[in-house]
Amino acid sequence: MTIDNKFHKKLSFIMEIDKLKTVDRRSLLRDKSRNENSAEHSWHLALMALLLIEYAHPKTNLLKAVKMALIHDVIEIYAGDTFCFEINADADRIKREWDAALSIFSLLPDSQNEEFLNLWTEFELGETHTAKFVIALDRLQPFLQSYFPENHPTIIDGIHRNQMIERMLPIKDGIPNLWSFVEAEIEKYFFSLET
Amino acid sequence: MTIDNKFHKKLSFIMEIDKLKTVDRRSLLRDKSRNENSAEHSWHLALMALLLIEYAHPKTNLLKAVKMALIHDVIEIYAGDTFCFEINADADRIKREWDAALSIFSLLPDSQNEEFLNLWTEFELGETHTAKFVIALDRLQPFLQSYFPENHPTIIDGIHRNQMIERMLPIKDGIPNLWSFVEAEIEKYFFSLET
Repeated sequence: MTIDNKFHKKLSFIMEIDKLKTVDRRSLLRDKSRNENSAEHSWHLALMALLLIEYAHPKTNLLKAVKMALIHDVIEIYAGDTFCFEINADADRIKREWDAALSIFSLLPDSQNEEFLNLWTEFELGETHTAKFVIALDRLQPFLQSYFPENHPTIIDGIHRNQMIERMLPIKDGIPNLWSFVEAEIEKYFFSLET
Repeated sequence: MTIDNKFHKKLSFIMEIDKLKTVDRRSLLRDKSRNENSAEHSWHLALMALLLIEYAHPKTNLLKAVKMALIHDVIEIYAGDTFCFEINADADRIKREWDAALSIFSLLPDSQNEEFLNLWTEFELGETHTAKFVIALDRLQPFLQSYFPENHPTIIDGIHRNQMIERMLPIKDGIPNLWSFVEAEIEKYFFSLET
């Protein structure tokens, strides 16, 4: 087989997604030395899927979950990272991210363009067990970035308790067995602020 | 189910591997703004496995390949990154990395400790089709980091042609169909140096 047009399309995508390493997120590394970027975050998420699959719904598809974790943020290369607590971000965000998805996945050969677009849409809609699991991980990962059991968790300054609970609720849906842990840590954090 | 000891072990591992985001590699981001770190590299590798599986041997297990890509470098948190062209690095490296693997994977519950240690050992031995595929990707990824088809590739300064060919040879073994592309690019690069 000669190296064909299909391979060169994949090559363009592989090189383009390198830019995700320069998309910064709000969350910090655990050593607080700098902000985490979306490529590192995606790696962490995919690895967490391998580790926490036993707590997911039995109908969760692990390979699909890992694929979803790996690609869920590549649209940020064109759409940027939207801060999760930003108010009224949604209307604009949906349009911007959908355009970005169409654009970046179109670099790929047709069959993979379709596969990745479907994976990303499934993640965004959050209706399947697999999508719910990955969305839960996507909330849990930044939560753990600031989880320091040796003292109290230092979650995100200036966020109200109700906002935090609401933001983390998908964990209750996607990985129900971990909810008691997350809820207890949130309570501990807000209790520590009051005392 | 209450949150048990097993979950807390997984949590320790999830938090410990955050440090891979601070292990720098020799290769640069494509925009040359900084060195790439091993967490980003692992994300890129896992995504490349999804994209290039069609060129792998039919007996390659994709889920296993992705797992291998995600964890193959976590031992660097304790052992550091060894520059691939370093002479005589091997004897010391093997001992250091094996100790690191025993140490980091032992944070996990028994069954996952065993699974990850087996995955990492399979990768290091490089004898199975899956390991050969991931090793080939591990050579191809930094190669592509410096591949600029718009002018000539600027691979790694000061490396001799034979060293480069030797370093990239696992691509011939793991993804034979891509070898002609890699070889042609290496020739182009060294030809450009001579003229």
